Amino acid sequence: MTSTPITLDDIEALAVGAWILGTGGGGSPYLGLLNMRRLYAEGHRVQLMSPFDLDDDDRVAVVSNMGAPLVGQERLADSRNIARAVEIQEEYSGRKFRAVMSLEIGGGNGIQPLMAAAHLGLPVIDADTMGRAYPEAQMTSVAVGGLIPYPCALYDPRGIEAIVTRVPNWKWMERASRRICVEMGSIASTCKAPRTGAEVKEWGIHFTVSRAIGIGRRVREAVRRHDDPIAAILDEAAGKKLFRGKLVDVDRRTTEGFLRGRAAIEGLDEDRGSRLEIAFQNEWVVAWRDGAPVAMSPDLICVLDTVSGNAAGTETIRYGMRVTVVALPAPPVFLTPKGLDHVGPRAFGYDLDFKSVFDA
Amino acid sequence: MTSTPITLDDIEALAVGAWILGTGGGGSPYLGLLNMRRLYAEGHRVQLMSPFDLDDDDRVAVVSNMGAPLVGQERLADSRNIARAVEIQEEYSGRKFRAVMSLEIGGGNGIQPLMAAAHLGLPVIDADTMGRAYPEAQMTSVAVGGLIPYPCALYDPRGIEAIVTRVPNWKWMERASRRICVEMGSIASTCKAPRTGAEVKEWGIHFTVSRAIGIGRRVREAVRRHDDPIAAILDEAAGKKLFRGKLVDVDRRTTEGFLRGRAAIEGLDEDRGSRLEIAFQNEWVVAWRDGAPVAMSPDLICVLDTVSGNAAGTETIRYGMRVTVVALPAPPVFLTPKGLDHVGPRAFGYDLDFKSVFDA
Repeated sequence: MTSTPITLDDIEALAVGAWILGTGGGGSPYLGLLNMRRLYAEGHRVQLMSPFDLDDDDRVAVVSNMGAPLVGQERLADSRNIARAVEIQEEYSGRKFRAVMSLEIGGGNGIQPLMAAAHLGLPVIDADTMGRAYPEAQMTSVAVGGLIPYPCALYDPRGIEAIVTRVPNWKWMERASRRICVEMGSIASTCKAPRTGAEVKEWGIHFTVSRAIGIGRRVREAVRRHDDPIAAILDEAAGKKLFRGKLVDVDRRTTEGFLRGRAAIEGLDEDRGSRLEIAFQNEWVVAWRDGAPVAMSPDLICVLDTVSGNAAGTETIRYGMRVTVVALPAPPVFLTPKGLDHVGPRAFGYDLDFKSVFDA
Repeated sequence: MTSTPITLDDIEALAVGAWILGTGGGGSPYLGLLNMRRLYAEGHRVQLMSPFDLDDDDRVAVVSNMGAPLVGQERLADSRNIARAVEIQEEYSGRKFRAVMSLEIGGGNGIQPLMAAAHLGLPVIDADTMGRAYPEAQMTSVAVGGLIPYPCALYDPRGIEAIVTRVPNWKWMERASRRICVEMGSIASTCKAPRTGAEVKEWGIHFTVSRAIGIGRRVREAVRRHDDPIAAILDEAAGKKLFRGKLVDVDRRTTEGFLRGRAAIEGLDEDRGSRLEIAFQNEWVVAWRDGAPVAMSPDLICVLDTVSGNAAGTETIRYGMRVTVVALPAPPVFLTPKGLDHVGPRAFGYDLDFKSVFDA
């Protein structure tokens, strides 16, 4: 057992890094961070565990908040909600979990497993199933791996609990669970299909909690030293700068349990005279520069505050913000033909062949 | 044990009687009848059991097809679907059922428990929770009785299975399960919250299977003897004739998992010169004669083919049909103040004080 304690300073860094890896989605980590500060003040402590320390038949709870990020901002998070979603799965199967893991490391969902873990006394696995945030249930490494998509437990703090016990495929899990989520008010605490230790070792995206903490540390350090935080992110995460400018338009609507829309950025400095438009479905999906596509999923498109390096969410971005748009490399599992079927531009309805920012 | 065999002739009568008690809803029993003819041809037999032969701690499966009747007509019924919904509940609880019971005796849902019972080798309880058909989950005797509304299992033959495991009240069960039903295509095989023998004896509406068979027998007998089947129904079910005329208009839409609309009937014979309008939400809910309300839920409003005595469903009624509208008395549980809260005209959005057709 080589699990290591997660400090409160780690969590502060995780909040910054996960928000960047969220590519605009996953929900703001701020409310989760407040919850963790309080849980740590009350004496709770959470351990981080390597996926490779799992036994093959250990059971891992995969958690996330599901829904439209804008609603997540309005309905305050209670850390017990996500713990309850895990308990529903335990009650359904009659079996205990060995650890908790993020569905997606991006945004507030990078912190959700820590809240569950604090209440349940379980470690958090240093891995997730997206390496970022994505809006739909079939957009995960475990779905690309063809693992079983059910059962999925959903919890609403008004006392509504449901389990999707069987579906023919991941897209039906998305459809069925999304409907329940919408009825719960477009936000639900969910515990997805339990994964075995063997599955996490084979199909999990590994060490993404550490990666998010690392990115967050570099941003906080750069700001403290009056260095350029964007440069620190590009260095730490092997990213590429795409565009710098000013937010001039956002078209946003909450529909069918998602936040959808498009943002427009007018170039500044070396990008003056150009315009970048980015379409989103919870997360930034495709960016066009002067009408030509320049970045697309599964590459991570991150819109960052130019001065602070903090991420801007699709639900918080607004007119006048000075932003720098960067791309970070996608987890390799999504670059396979099967991976691109699940999360390439066509999976979001854009008739584009995937071309990576990082291809020569 | 005083359960008695249900003959195929009983089932033919049940199909006729349940369609009348369906007050326009519950779905046409025709497809269910075809299923039962086939199951009986294959050698299956179903027993009818008095609710008072249940032990207090027996478990009873309460089944129904949920959704919009119009869709139920388009998607052919497979008798194994409803049996699978029962099995999902057994798998969830780890306990076996003693018997199967109708949620609602009305329409095709009066036959659903027989299909489940044939596959599972269980008797059918001579009772239901509505004494008719109603569109929503909280419109039952067990909801009026304040019994626990969960868990509810839903099944779709494409392999989608879900359980609503907890809700704060019956209206939330309606909302949560309806959403899943809509995603399944506005039709789902459901097994509602299991009931104990004690609960069925206290809150079930008793002997409604026998009542439906009795009404059906009288109709079939009257037609065979060239007697008036409407008069036979009024006699057998202690009903009152409201109106006779010709269908001149139907406004119908399938929305949010329901079939809603309004039908207009122009008077013939002694009702010539008058017009009856009836609003429906799956079932006939309120009838106005020349603009004044003359019948409303929980009284049963039944629209019958004047010649054959067969019921006309809200999804099958059409221009030109000659119909007789009759009222049958409501189960007493719905006439209490709490009962009227659940199924009185205001529960359907009509600002009317309930006045029974059967009050002097």
